[in-house]
Amino acid sequence: MDTLLYAGSFDPVTLGHLDVIQRAAGLCGELVVAVMHNPEKRGYLPVSMRVSLLQAACRALPNVRVIAHGGLLVTCAHEVGASAVVRGLRPLGDFESEYQMAQTNRLLGGVETLLMTTSDRYASISSSIVRQVAAFGGDISGMVPDGLAEEITKALACSRDAR
Amino acid sequence: MDTLLYAGSFDPVTLGHLDVIQRAAGLCGELVVAVMHNPEKRGYLPVSMRVSLLQAACRALPNVRVIAHGGLLVTCAHEVGASAVVRGLRPLGDFESEYQMAQTNRLLGGVETLLMTTSDRYASISSSIVRQVAAFGGDISGMVPDGLAEEITKALACSRDAR
Amino acid sequence: MDTLLYAGSFDPVTLGHLDVIQRAAGLCGELVVAVMHNPEKRGYLPVSMRVSLLQAACRALPNVRVIAHGGLLVTCAHEVGASAVVRGLRPLGDFESEYQMAQTNRLLGGVETLLMTTSDRYASISSSIVRQVAAFGGDISGMVPDGLAEEITKALACSRDAR
Amino acid sequence: MDTLLYAGSFDPVTLGHLDVIQRAAGLCGELVVAVMHNPEKRGYLPVSMRVSLLQAACRALPNVRVIAHGGLLVTCAHEVGASAVVRGLRPLGDFESEYQMAQTNRLLGGVETLLMTTSDRYASISSSIVRQVAAFGGDISGMVPDGLAEEITKALACSRDAR
Amino acid sequence: MDTLLYAGSFDPVTLGHLDVIQRAAGLCGELVVAVMHNPEKRGYLPVSMRVSLLQAACRALPNVRVIAHGGLLVTCAHEVGASAVVRGLRPLGDFESEYQMAQTNRLLGGVETLLMTTSDRYASISSSIVRQVAAFGGDISGMVPDGLAEEITKALACSRDAR
Amino acid sequence: MDTLLYAGSFDPVTLGHLDVIQRAAGLCGELVVAVMHNPEKRGYLPVSMRVSLLQAACRALPNVRVIAHGGLLVTCAHEVGASAVVRGLRPLGDFESEYQMAQTNRLLGGVETLLMTTSDRYASISSSIVRQVAAFGGDISGMVPDGLAEEITKALACSRDAR
Repeated sequence: MDTLLYAGSFDPVTLGHLDVIQRAAGLCGELVVAVMHNPEKRGYLPVSMRVSLLQAACRALPNVRVIAHGGLLVTCAHEVGASAVVRGLRPLGDFESEYQMAQTNRLLGGVETLLMTTSDRYASISSSIVRQVAAFGGDISGMVPDGLAEEITKALACSRDAR
Repeated sequence: MDTLLYAGSFDPVTLGHLDVIQRAAGLCGELVVAVMHNPEKRGYLPVSMRVSLLQAACRALPNVRVIAHGGLLVTCAHEVGASAVVRGLRPLGDFESEYQMAQTNRLLGGVETLLMTTSDRYASISSSIVRQVAAFGGDISGMVPDGLAEEITKALACSRDAR
Repeated sequence: MDTLLYAGSFDPVTLGHLDVIQRAAGLCGELVVAVMHNPEKRGYLPVSMRVSLLQAACRALPNVRVIAHGGLLVTCAHEVGASAVVRGLRPLGDFESEYQMAQTNRLLGGVETLLMTTSDRYASISSSIVRQVAAFGGDISGMVPDGLAEEITKALACSRDAR
Repeated sequence: MDTLLYAGSFDPVTLGHLDVIQRAAGLCGELVVAVMHNPEKRGYLPVSMRVSLLQAACRALPNVRVIAHGGLLVTCAHEVGASAVVRGLRPLGDFESEYQMAQTNRLLGGVETLLMTTSDRYASISSSIVRQVAAFGGDISGMVPDGLAEEITKALACSRDAR
Repeated sequence: MDTLLYAGSFDPVTLGHLDVIQRAAGLCGELVVAVMHNPEKRGYLPVSMRVSLLQAACRALPNVRVIAHGGLLVTCAHEVGASAVVRGLRPLGDFESEYQMAQTNRLLGGVETLLMTTSDRYASISSSIVRQVAAFGGDISGMVPDGLAEEITKALACSRDAR
Repeated sequence: MDTLLYAGSFDPVTLGHLDVIQRAAGLCGELVVAVMHNPEKRGYLPVSMRVSLLQAACRALPNVRVIAHGGLLVTCAHEVGASAVVRGLRPLGDFESEYQMAQTNRLLGGVETLLMTTSDRYASISSSIVRQVAAFGGDISGMVPDGLAEEITKALACSRDAR
């Protein structure tokens, strides 16, 4: 497996994402991390900021490359030459949708999905929880990569003001 | 991912197993398929026959090697130099136990598990169903690799006589 | 649907079983209720008693016939000329095994399964719970068909003594 | 069971729907297939087209009648004189909502629901997946009844233009 | 446990809610029942009416106090001095979201959650089902506390007219 | 809630158990921790040792009392005067059985169950995993209460020798 693809919305990146990135990067020549965005579905942080936050989080991982992609996951996988897609799997709430997405992507584009179980200590962290905690003025430093809590907190505040 | 390990009891091998083997072999340099056996837990077919059936099923796959192993999965992974373990995941009945096994193997031996969703047409096939159908004189040729149905049917009959 | 088959071990019959019988009997010309027994797997009550308890419970249902069968469910369905098999489905604990059994019976014998959701008030009743409650001297009259509690309690006591 | 009702939105009909229709039609005198539509919830294809696509798909099944209905499922069941409602049950994603709907329809209108497990090879097909594949220019001919792929593809394109 | 908090939207109160209230009130000095409302998410019945319906339902329970709260659950728990939050858990549809909410509330505010399994006979009742049945002119008297069916039916009709 | 009961087999005690004990002890006047043993079902460690390990683990918790009990959970709850039983609930593998046990205990003995979600970092720890790791010579110090790893490892070795 020369190249693997880890795609998501990363809005914002969490320690759960970083855990999957670190473990997947250890299994392949290159890991492409793709911020998928959909022109019809506005997110919270600007795509360019999600990319730069991921780049900061992955600075110590030389074989990780961060990109943005506005199309289908199967198109992205073909473009970057990935032999398979990696997805994190939490114990609750992920299984059914990840299973169906894996079947659809194999059907649509011949793309294999490799599901990696989440480390227990990140099982309840999600981008959505980070956004909620920040919205109520809580401390997100235990949920996002080291050194990024302040920047993410400010960016989420801007995003709320703009909505 | 130079080497991946696909371990199980393969008692006997099914088309569901072969599907995972073919897809996983396409993702790595070498796929080691290991028939795991436990001295305290007698199976149905002799281990040597499970190995030879797998070898016959995988004849067309040059980067697949079949072995037998009597120890822990994490020990086996270290011995063959596998960067990760592959497991098939059916829609029903597998998720909870596979999740727990993946967490335990990471905890015990630092071994990563990659879960691959089963192709829909094999979702209800298992070694146990093959054994049941054979026991009632049914035709297992749609459940096991091409050309192995007769040999497996006979071997299972011997195994039932010996119990 | 002239004939439907409702098969189980009924060891002993519960109000949950009777609920399925009453509702299924309303949907077909004849409902055959079959006490399935397996020579290799001893139950708790004698098969003949399970049949007579079911007959007592179904006395008011003219289109219900109770039989015993020692073979495969698909064989039984063919013998009684059933167009389909009926099964009760409780909210917890039944789904995965019932799904797999339905797929296997269609595969093995071309027999369709119709799953009927259990009435909420019987969702936690099972033959196993009845046996446990009786073993601890509890009152099972709210769990089994009217007028059978005493007979079942005595029969379970005999069964425990004989073990 | 003289008459059974199979109700859904069929937007559009899939091979999974046709599989349930064929199997349910084999169990009853007449199977009424009802395209349920809700004035407050716009669908994708016009209701009249969903009906005509179903009629084309069911041409070889003499005891299947296709209708449209704009009310409650329990009202529809009473109007067509159905003794029960049939629903397909896929291994993932259907169980909880189907269970709750079955309980509600029994509570609201005394209507029984018979759940039939989906054939494995259609387990990942849904109207929603068909719409997605078509939207990305993919080939849906393996997902919809024979000979209808072209017509459905065109109709979905019109529907997207009109949104 | 001097004070427990049972929080929800109670839109409207059901017999399932009342069952949890009665059982939880038996375990503590005071049970505070809080109608949580969110300025951004309009409900169906006015908050003041939801409070008064709950008060009527709980008249016979001297250690139950009903309030309204417009903030976070953890804030509410701290304000009323609750040692823990109580939640009902139905067999289907509640587990994943209740688990995640419990983890989030412990993380955010150090608030413990105690999950109580719903009595079987209320397993399919929810505020949403009550609203649906009322909207179709059905009788909700078996789903809501004694003597409140008429008032709730009228209030839901007003709410529908106002939408 | 003056007294709560936390019952289990604790064979051996884990950090997951201790987490529930600490959190439950903070909610009540007295927490009774009961090692339940069944004369017909031999465990691994002697009951007296399980009790003494729990006592060592709970030394810093003044309102925790450890006992052994050989009967039914509902009998134990009545004997110690507990107003309710506490159980830990892990994200995977616990829900269905805990739900059914809670319903049965309410039915049998009027005993309420309060389910507390496990802290994420202990989600994959169980007595069974501790026994497995120890059997393979692994280090269990991250899975059991501080200072007890050596004693538990030795006791499990004795238990294996004696089997």
